[in-house]
Amino acid sequence: MRDPKATNIVWHQTSINRTDREVLLQQKGTVIWLTGLSGSGKSTIASALESKLYQLGKLTYLLDGDNIRHGLNTDLGFNEKDRTENIRRIGEVAKLFVDAGVIVLTAFISPFREDRDSVRRLIGDDFVEVWVDCSLEICMRRDPKGLYKKAKKGEIKDFTGLDSPYEDPENPEVIIKSHEQDIEVSVNQIINYLEF
Amino acid sequence: MRDPKATNIVWHQTSINRTDREVLLQQKGTVIWLTGLSGSGKSTIASALESKLYQLGKLTYLLDGDNIRHGLNTDLGFNEKDRTENIRRIGEVAKLFVDAGVIVLTAFISPFREDRDSVRRLIGDDFVEVWVDCSLEICMRRDPKGLYKKAKKGEIKDFTGLDSPYEDPENPEVIIKSHEQDIEVSVNQIINYLEF
Repeated sequence: MRDPKATNIVWHQTSINRTDREVLLQQKGTVIWLTGLSGSGKSTIASALESKLYQLGKLTYLLDGDNIRHGLNTDLGFNEKDRTENIRRIGEVAKLFVDAGVIVLTAFISPFREDRDSVRRLIGDDFVEVWVDCSLEICMRRDPKGLYKKAKKGEIKDFTGLDSPYEDPENPEVIIKSHEQDIEVSVNQIINYLEF
Repeated sequence: MRDPKATNIVWHQTSINRTDREVLLQQKGTVIWLTGLSGSGKSTIASALESKLYQLGKLTYLLDGDNIRHGLNTDLGFNEKDRTENIRRIGEVAKLFVDAGVIVLTAFISPFREDRDSVRRLIGDDFVEVWVDCSLEICMRRDPKGLYKKAKKGEIKDFTGLDSPYEDPENPEVIIKSHEQDIEVSVNQIINYLEF
């Protein structure tokens, strides 16, 4: 898909390509896309997964609210339009990392099905959707950052699960019941899917 | 600097950090920022540099108009405001790659000094500005993509060197006189700066 504004661009091949980089790294560029409510355990699982993959000699990079919202997407808020643009940009950055040969982990609520599916289409076969499936009740009880409390007081608007919807994944590659099992089990579920 | 829109974010440390990744890769995350007129030889030098670094076992990734303008920045045009946002986003993506431990090469005209200096401030000591210094006359004579011709006919507006300025770097780390020397010499100038 080309944008009409960007007409004076000519494609050219770089001499070193994705396959070369994957040979160097001895791994395949992949996106492991963690989705779920705030407090479901996405960041905890992502951190543990990174450690495990590092032990296996794999190069990973974690994209999350912290490094994206404070940098690339600092101009975006939390309304529906900005959330969609947030996920679009994250998808595009993930695509670049995959092309670099890196195993990208993402930890974003990413509540809208259409946004996630857009990233899936963009990335293709190397997109692994991991649904961190934890009930709203449990997430609200955990409330590790105190965000549900703030949202209920009206201090945060458009908060997923309260005044903004979370659309469950329909065909995720992995479903993790984070409240029913150890973190090790969750990490191994993903590792097993990746077939290391 | 925090954006007022993004107030419900808490910073946290990931378990695997940049140093871990640099140990794994045996290299230091770096941005090699090539700047210069259209036709000055940025992409050619970047490609040759990638090959050379690959031979040295280094993981690189090239950001250029092709993979950025068709993806992340497909919503941006070529007026001054969009060009500034274009470079801002590229700087932020480069920062993520540096944090991943990758040697990032960028090949963009990036004509405005303030935009380049913003990226320098963002990246810090790991920013290497390489000015591919080739006169407008020679670039116009080369015109590898036929863009100067189109711009002179008025088919492209805001074209750097014609109806939009190029601001020369004041203190670049490396200056390459691409029209006076072999590509090998240019590549070695950068490699020598990097001290491999």
